[in-house]
Amino acid sequence: MSIKAVTEAVRTQVDAALEQRLREASIDASLADAMRYGALLGGKRIRPYLTLTIADICSADKAAALDVACAVECIHAYSLIHDDLPAMDDDDLRRGKPTCHIAFDEATAILAGDALQTLAFELLSAAPLAAVPAQRQLEIIRLLAAASGGNGMCGGQALDLAATHQSLSESALERVHRHKTGALIRASAELGVLCGKEQAQPYRSAFTQFADALGLAFQIQDDILDVTASTETLGKPQGSDEQAEKSTYVKLLGLDGARQKLLLLHQQALQSLADIPYNTQQLEQFSTVLLTRDH
Amino acid sequence: MSIKAVTEAVRTQVDAALEQRLREASIDASLADAMRYGALLGGKRIRPYLTLTIADICSADKAAALDVACAVECIHAYSLIHDDLPAMDDDDLRRGKPTCHIAFDEATAILAGDALQTLAFELLSAAPLAAVPAQRQLEIIRLLAAASGGNGMCGGQALDLAATHQSLSESALERVHRHKTGALIRASAELGVLCGKEQAQPYRSAFTQFADALGLAFQIQDDILDVTASTETLGKPQGSDEQAEKSTYVKLLGLDGARQKLLLLHQQALQSLADIPYNTQQLEQFSTVLLTRDH
Repeated sequence: MSIKAVTEAVRTQVDAALEQRLREASIDASLADAMRYGALLGGKRIRPYLTLTIADICSADKAAALDVACAVECIHAYSLIHDDLPAMDDDDLRRGKPTCHIAFDEATAILAGDALQTLAFELLSAAPLAAVPAQRQLEIIRLLAAASGGNGMCGGQALDLAATHQSLSESALERVHRHKTGALIRASAELGVLCGKEQAQPYRSAFTQFADALGLAFQIQDDILDVTASTETLGKPQGSDEQAEKSTYVKLLGLDGARQKLLLLHQQALQSLADIPYNTQQLEQFSTVLLTRDH
Repeated sequence: MSIKAVTEAVRTQVDAALEQRLREASIDASLADAMRYGALLGGKRIRPYLTLTIADICSADKAAALDVACAVECIHAYSLIHDDLPAMDDDDLRRGKPTCHIAFDEATAILAGDALQTLAFELLSAAPLAAVPAQRQLEIIRLLAAASGGNGMCGGQALDLAATHQSLSESALERVHRHKTGALIRASAELGVLCGKEQAQPYRSAFTQFADALGLAFQIQDDILDVTASTETLGKPQGSDEQAEKSTYVKLLGLDGARQKLLLLHQQALQSLADIPYNTQQLEQFSTVLLTRDH
């Protein structure tokens, strides 16, 4: 089974919701187009999948969880648009399609990223979240902001840029990933719990541990695929990490070592789920399909 | 009296607060430095002045209002950092000092802007705002997000970029300014009211009208100063709008016509204040000093 098949129902739901939320995204038509383009470019929708699946496990209000999932995806989409810019990773292709600054222009891509970040916080403070108690809603906003900012995702991206042309230790590389991609994956899970009923809140740390292990494992998988998969299946040039002189788990641990670490983290993820007294079968299947994918 | 003298007490207070809130702004030292640089580069602090002064008039909790004022300034600072980028206005100087991407580099400037925007929402959802009722706090977040995003400031910046090398009608130019700079100035005033006591809430629209007139007048004043003031007093090259082939009020209405419109808006601003049954003398003085400044 492919990861796209596992997440298909969520992707359909989230894409429809994003499309609707982005219908009047800007008074400027081309900015609105660029925001839609960046947010709806495809992708596996891993983060909204985590939010919605965990929210469902925690008996959350479905409308509130959907807006939170859209907000998380807006943050992810904005970060990809900015990461792809010439001054950052300078990527022309993303998921096999022209990146936002290629399809539009650099200025529009910068603004589209900016406005998608703003939209995330607009969604989180809006009416559909009224089913969540106000204090919890504020915690949701605080958590997503903390995960995205200078001590979260943006900080990780800055560490990553500073590390280009340098060889990092394993712990330094882990620090990059825990922030650059891990923080938002972790937040996706926590936000799902925060949308849920009061009785589910004590299991927040177990869900968080699951997401932490999954997030790092996903990154190691990415490093492995960068050397083993073809350009066609990846949607980006094969070996692009090598070309960018980036530290990777494969370089640090070798292909076998990276695969062993991936397996270990996968087991940790599944163990964290074992501590949760709800049916978490969907998350087990998701992590297994995600971490054994070949593209 | 100069505008810097009028806002000095607020500037000192806001700069100290921003400095403190930015102390651990990022796990990446250079990103943290760039965020501080962008946020503390100087400036008149017009927006936090409006928020704090109006919050004070509306008997707001001082700690809450200060964090809201810092959040507004974070949004303003992020927008300046991104506006100055080579792909946008391509400015090397801001307030007589190197812009963020010159002092650091482009990638760091993009991330510093991103993380300052996030910090705004982190501040608004954090503990010091607990003095404000939770529903009002959520409204504060919603309002700042709406003012900053694709239908506010970002949308105005996109309209402005699209209008380069074009001659706009007066109404189209007003639309640009009402969004690009007006939306955040308007929000600064509204947020001050939202921090205030319940009895002050009915005067929100009067404060908003004041800020709307002030914001547009401020922009016209900027266009006038661009042709009348010297490079030294402006801190940016004189005639830079002319060089960038931008539509301005001076080009549309002539210098005298622009000055008349400025005067009219100034009168409207003062009239709006007359509807408010509190002592608004500080705002009257502020608008008069701001709109009659020569640099």
